[in-house]
Amino acid sequence: MIHHFENHDLVTEHGSQLVDVTGELFAAVERADVTNGMALVYSPHTTCAIVINEHESGFIDDFNELLSDLAPEADRYYRHDDMDIRTEGLDDDDLHPNGWSHARAGLLSSSSQSIPIVDRKLMLGRWQRVFFCELDRSRSRKVFIQVIGE
Amino acid sequence: MIHHFENHDLVTEHGSQLVDVTGELFAAVERADVTNGMALVYSPHTTCAIVINEHESGFIDDFNELLSDLAPEADRYYRHDDMDIRTEGLDDDDLHPNGWSHARAGLLSSSSQSIPIVDRKLMLGRWQRVFFCELDRSRSRKVFIQVIGE
Amino acid sequence: MIHHFENHDLVTEHGSQLVDVTGELFAAVERADVTNGMALVYSPHTTCAIVINEHESGFIDDFNELLSDLAPEADRYYRHDDMDIRTEGLDDDDLHPNGWSHARAGLLSSSSQSIPIVDRKLMLGRWQRVFFCELDRSRSRKVFIQVIGE
Repeated sequence: MIHHFENHDLVTEHGSQLVDVTGELFAAVERADVTNGMALVYSPHTTCAIVINEHESGFIDDFNELLSDLAPEADRYYRHDDMDIRTEGLDDDDLHPNGWSHARAGLLSSSSQSIPIVDRKLMLGRWQRVFFCELDRSRSRKVFIQVIGE
Repeated sequence: MIHHFENHDLVTEHGSQLVDVTGELFAAVERADVTNGMALVYSPHTTCAIVINEHESGFIDDFNELLSDLAPEADRYYRHDDMDIRTEGLDDDDLHPNGWSHARAGLLSSSSQSIPIVDRKLMLGRWQRVFFCELDRSRSRKVFIQVIGE
Repeated sequence: MIHHFENHDLVTEHGSQLVDVTGELFAAVERADVTNGMALVYSPHTTCAIVINEHESGFIDDFNELLSDLAPEADRYYRHDDMDIRTEGLDDDDLHPNGWSHARAGLLSSSSQSIPIVDRKLMLGRWQRVFFCELDRSRSRKVFIQVIGE
């Protein structure tokens, strides 16, 4: 079994940013040198998601607007925001109300996406791109790419 | 490591169709001849989803109604629909407004489902069936089934 | 290839309970004795989900409130509830209207979560915990933990 793992550090520029990591994914699969297997793209964060969809600016805005309608940042009370103020030992990054970010991450529940690799080819569809979704404000983030196969 | 991959072509009959692919999945697992491992059911499309739930017509209608309420086809503006008209090089299939389909696919964010295989048995629960969900109108589609194990 | 599989039986205490199974997951990964690979946490039920988020009571309440707003138990008609009364051969557990539970499970579409294992370490982020989500009322449940690797 071949195992290949990469961490990619990134800094998101603003809330609701969708960072296209498809290029990094293709490069990681090539480095993994796997004939058949699968790639796992994983977010180790609680206010992010990994999403596969089309890289088209209209969709990206539509998607964020839908999330804003369903779990708005303003005009909705989140109990989690009371916690942040009380809790000890947090990084500066965590010292802001982000109950809406957790709610959106919960709704999507997509900490990872798995994609097959067949005959050395990552089997993404023609229009599919893989996005790291920032559901909080600008922060330092990690995205893990793991390839398993033979 | 055993690797087994199948593509199944299908043509969805109408929008919001849930195509039960559980039979194809069981057959693929048997052909893979794997004792222990996992099956990955993957959609290579940006306006589809793979969903596990009960095969019961009431649920299927409830699910589509919920998606319609959250991301309606009519009476909501999608920026993505402006793009479709402008973009070059699309198949006929892509030349219609489907911002609502992308929004629903984004909300579900379920391009795939993974299911364990143990002692030659696909570990689906008693009521679980695997569905290919058409979130756009009737189109030609592919569903990938990959089995990895030993 | 190393394969390790565990079933954990549990009884949820009430609807909308999020059962933290992270401890069981870490113990299973240790028992699997895998250097590199992945863990799959899988629910074999149609009215449950596996979700990764922060273990903080405010978030848990926020998350359940959001699901209640989007797919309410009362004041919304679910066709699935007509079926339950008619169908034969069900356990007592299944003889109650739970269309709302199926709708929520469909919306989350998270029967499983995959997490990488690298150098014997389960790569959950600092705040990430893995939850078995009861989307129905109190019931007997199973959660599968599968580890594949080398």
